[in-house]
Amino acid sequence: MKDTIDPAVIPTYDDVVAAHERIKPHIHRTPVLTSSYFNDLVGAELFFKCENFQKAGAFKVRGACNAVFGLSDALAERGVATHSSGNHALSLSYAAGRRGIPCNVVMPRTAPEAKKAAVRGYGGIITECEPSTTSREAVFAEVQERTGAEFVHPYNDPRVVAGQGTCSREFMEQTDGLDMMIAPIGGGGMISGCCLTLSNIAPEVQIIAAEPEQADDAYRSFKAGHIIADDAPVTIADGLKVPLKDLTWHFVSNHVSDILTASEQEIIDAMKLTWQRMKIVMEPSCAVPLATILKNKDKFAGKRVGVIVTGGNVDLDKLPWITG
Amino acid sequence: MKDTIDPAVIPTYDDVVAAHERIKPHIHRTPVLTSSYFNDLVGAELFFKCENFQKAGAFKVRGACNAVFGLSDALAERGVATHSSGNHALSLSYAAGRRGIPCNVVMPRTAPEAKKAAVRGYGGIITECEPSTTSREAVFAEVQERTGAEFVHPYNDPRVVAGQGTCSREFMEQTDGLDMMIAPIGGGGMISGCCLTLSNIAPEVQIIAAEPEQADDAYRSFKAGHIIADDAPVTIADGLKVPLKDLTWHFVSNHVSDILTASEQEIIDAMKLTWQRMKIVMEPSCAVPLATILKNKDKFAGKRVGVIVTGGNVDLDKLPWITG
Repeated sequence: MKDTIDPAVIPTYDDVVAAHERIKPHIHRTPVLTSSYFNDLVGAELFFKCENFQKAGAFKVRGACNAVFGLSDALAERGVATHSSGNHALSLSYAAGRRGIPCNVVMPRTAPEAKKAAVRGYGGIITECEPSTTSREAVFAEVQERTGAEFVHPYNDPRVVAGQGTCSREFMEQTDGLDMMIAPIGGGGMISGCCLTLSNIAPEVQIIAAEPEQADDAYRSFKAGHIIADDAPVTIADGLKVPLKDLTWHFVSNHVSDILTASEQEIIDAMKLTWQRMKIVMEPSCAVPLATILKNKDKFAGKRVGVIVTGGNVDLDKLPWITG
Repeated sequence: MKDTIDPAVIPTYDDVVAAHERIKPHIHRTPVLTSSYFNDLVGAELFFKCENFQKAGAFKVRGACNAVFGLSDALAERGVATHSSGNHALSLSYAAGRRGIPCNVVMPRTAPEAKKAAVRGYGGIITECEPSTTSREAVFAEVQERTGAEFVHPYNDPRVVAGQGTCSREFMEQTDGLDMMIAPIGGGGMISGCCLTLSNIAPEVQIIAAEPEQADDAYRSFKAGHIIADDAPVTIADGLKVPLKDLTWHFVSNHVSDILTASEQEIIDAMKLTWQRMKIVMEPSCAVPLATILKNKDKFAGKRVGVIVTGGNVDLDKLPWITG
């Protein structure tokens, strides 16, 4: 598993601690919920870290705030820019709004309307692209050229990874020890944050990533030992379509114990069951961990498992078990 | 406002404290969430006590557990029985299951399928009645005669009111002072619990009840100074169709500052907006307080307002903004 990244750009745990201080005024310390229903169903003790209750509706606000509030005044003046399948766009718009600087966002035209409206609600300026990595990167280059804004990548950015690392730091403070932590993997920002934090403060905790079968590039990368990137995978878990990059691959290849996958139907079933039993609105992407737990109960039986519920930004007029 | 109840059956704050000790092993201390979106929208500081995350999905488990776990072994042996529009049925089944005694439930045949399935899931035995108070009471009399079970009324029972009073007790511990507390009113169990607790530990907190316009019997009772009971009101807020009774009227008439009402569309809009912005699943009944806040912003402006989110048991296949 070769690692081609410059060690100087890899964030340290000190960066996580600094990020936490920097972003605390701008984020929620989200609650941890438990459900005896799911504990009985799985035969494990599950703890759900509810980042769907986070500011802007997702964990991504942690990394976005760390990047935005870490900028010098001179850099901040020109604003920030990014491309995102949704939640990073919301989060960066929110963070930029809190600092009073502009935020330019390139989003796929197919992104949920609810997400686009929310980006605009936070003051973000949207330029649309086609729903592929290639198109996104091309349109973005044009926008950045035009605005001169500071690029904050949704995940392949040390400031963002350090920010996401604050989530597992809080999670460990809120629970009395865990055997495993599981989170969805798309580009790998949240998982990388978990790896960074846990490898420093709780190296005994196994880190599991969960991915849609239909966008299983991280799974295949993990098995192959190098990054495999798909251009435009099709899955209901719209936050997980992007590929690993060198920084997140560094953390995934060094610290993740396993990557598990779930089918579209398994993701929808887990999503609906969570709404029904836990009374929380979670988006398809963040139902993937529970879907993989439910199909691999043996792996989790008897363990204390931290599940990161990554976001809750859903178009309530298009629920997959009603329209699908 | 005449009060015809025997003072000996009115629970005291000591009963609330005793109830809290008794039920603690069986309930969640539910979290309090805040939303800057709703704060900005209303111009107030809102605190949401999330009883939708409570065991069995609603605050009613507090009163049910207090009744069930307060029974002598001799009484408990014959089990408990009740009639309920839903959440009390779930809660009493849950409580009885925890104690290992039978629970007989009379439910309207029109109650949401999700609620009936959940009652059965907790081991409750259902007998159906017509969706009117008259039918419910007649069918119940037959069931109780047959089983000899201890009747636990959904709200007109001092054990139940004392149990519900534990919710506002927790709420005051979790917030740094409130100016007002608002909760939905149907039979008045939750509101009576608030009155009992707050009149003892925080008499400065105004207590507001919220009711559907289409089931506004408590509102009309409050204005008239005596109980007015409708037999079968029609509202989406299916938990709020039942009338006040003497015990809850005692608390409402003595301690409630105001009763506000909302239309069906206002309730649905508030429900959807909460799902969207707070990422929590709340049932129509518990969207009524927020609906009344949104239409009476002046009344709440600048105040610290505690909102009791009473329950989250919804049929996810029949959402009012999709099928309605």
